Amino acid sequence: MADATIGFLGLGIMGRPMALNLRQAGYGLVVYNRTPARIEPLLEAGAEAAASPHEVVTRSDVVVTMLSDSGAVESVYWGEDGVLAGVRPGQLLIDMSSIDARVARAIAAAAAAAGCDALDAPVSGGDVGARDATLSIMVGGSDAAFERARPIFEQLGKTIIRVGGPGTGQIAKACNQIIVALTIEAVSEALVLGSRGGVDPATLMKVFQGGLAANRVMDVRGRNLLEHDFAPGFMVDLHHKDLGIALAAARELGVFLPATAQVDQMLQELRQSGQGRSDHSALLTVIENGSNHRIGEPDAA
Amino acid sequence: MADATIGFLGLGIMGRPMALNLRQAGYGLVVYNRTPARIEPLLEAGAEAAASPHEVVTRSDVVVTMLSDSGAVESVYWGEDGVLAGVRPGQLLIDMSSIDARVARAIAAAAAAAGCDALDAPVSGGDVGARDATLSIMVGGSDAAFERARPIFEQLGKTIIRVGGPGTGQIAKACNQIIVALTIEAVSEALVLGSRGGVDPATLMKVFQGGLAANRVMDVRGRNLLEHDFAPGFMVDLHHKDLGIALAAARELGVFLPATAQVDQMLQELRQSGQGRSDHSALLTVIENGSNHRIGEPDAA
Repeated sequence: MADATIGFLGLGIMGRPMALNLRQAGYGLVVYNRTPARIEPLLEAGAEAAASPHEVVTRSDVVVTMLSDSGAVESVYWGEDGVLAGVRPGQLLIDMSSIDARVARAIAAAAAAAGCDALDAPVSGGDVGARDATLSIMVGGSDAAFERARPIFEQLGKTIIRVGGPGTGQIAKACNQIIVALTIEAVSEALVLGSRGGVDPATLMKVFQGGLAANRVMDVRGRNLLEHDFAPGFMVDLHHKDLGIALAAARELGVFLPATAQVDQMLQELRQSGQGRSDHSALLTVIENGSNHRIGEPDAA
Repeated sequence: MADATIGFLGLGIMGRPMALNLRQAGYGLVVYNRTPARIEPLLEAGAEAAASPHEVVTRSDVVVTMLSDSGAVESVYWGEDGVLAGVRPGQLLIDMSSIDARVARAIAAAAAAAGCDALDAPVSGGDVGARDATLSIMVGGSDAAFERARPIFEQLGKTIIRVGGPGTGQIAKACNQIIVALTIEAVSEALVLGSRGGVDPATLMKVFQGGLAANRVMDVRGRNLLEHDFAPGFMVDLHHKDLGIALAAARELGVFLPATAQVDQMLQELRQSGQGRSDHSALLTVIENGSNHRIGEPDAA
């Protein structure tokens, strides 16, 4: 399938390295960005520039989108000169943004009406995963569309799992983000209580990793927590967006998410205090501020 | 030190296999239990029976206690015919129960006044860890007492960490239990939302284990969650006790534990609904009951 031409829309911190990986795998690549400077590295790698999303679609076999939120996806798909205005039967549309499952299902329905395949395929693994092509990709849509897209996904990620029909990729991603947020919260509460109670936080993590409390968050974000280094990583703003998606889905489906709702509020608090662009491990500071104790430091008066 | 005689008090589901491991390592063993039948397997292994906690203390060099809660520890240590009434200078007291850190510090103070060493050394790893001598042991107390006790701990566990002064072992254990409870809660919320949203729960766990959401709870309790098999394992009653210890310590120290407080309330709800003796993974059912959805099953009307 590497003789296919891929149209790629959304060339930000995630999309750009992903598009580059596809180009380097031999795919034809047509790109568009409102900010032309953004696409220069891609043009140097042999991509072609289009003048609008609509032109990207008409010049490609497969359209991949990697946008910031539901609103951006809606405007790129349904806007004037947008994706859905340009599709032709047989095209494959893959939205890899993390968005509301309802929008994903609406794209799938519109694509089906136009005789196209559509997949929702949000990822985890961050900009490092995008660059190294080690993303986890959670795919919702038909099995046939999934098999058709698989060679593309294999250039972008390592864990590639079809989880169900249209929209379920977004549901799985939202669920993943619930666990990550609540694990950061769990580790934060444990570290603040333990440190305030006289135990060195690094020693505590060693204890936790020895048993049922062990988790990947401590492996990957443990240093950030211990050093209060909240350079992202994965931004509070984005994690708050993701929990909003989870809570909206839960409301629609009638699901009870008490701890998610609570941590969502804490992320709101962090954003309000100016930490929206900090790493999500900054959740620790919400617990510290409520406790008047910073882990690993003598207590405040 | 295996020529020392150990007095062991508290021969329940944890204490009995631990005492047996010490006996099999060559330690002299003196035991007492209100229910004499409980100690028969130990007598067969060569332990000697005493008529009271006091007599256990007077006949041993090291006293190990493994009791159910703070109240039981207080009555065994401070009661008439109790441990503290019988200690002599130079003895080593090791309490391996999971209890309030304040009680642990009170034992340490009383022991110091009597010229003894004391350690709080709660464990994680459950009855399987007790039997296989693979417990994690979190130790609070002086370094000298810890080194003195180390050969004993090495017969009981694999991860043996001194975390600080008197009471800090209990703090570390409470913190560990925070993470375990909140991780079960996180996985439960994610599984119910995902399953209700159309994703197979086992597939969801495969997705989660591929990234930052990965944790030991899914490895060890994943099957229980998927099959609604809540045979303990680790009982809701005990985990609720442990979060109560964490919240009491937090109140004393001025620490903010919002998610712990919330999950503590859910464990209370579980106990009230008759599931106190279920495995703590039964937290899943609180989320299911709030959602009118059982993971992996068609939705209720």
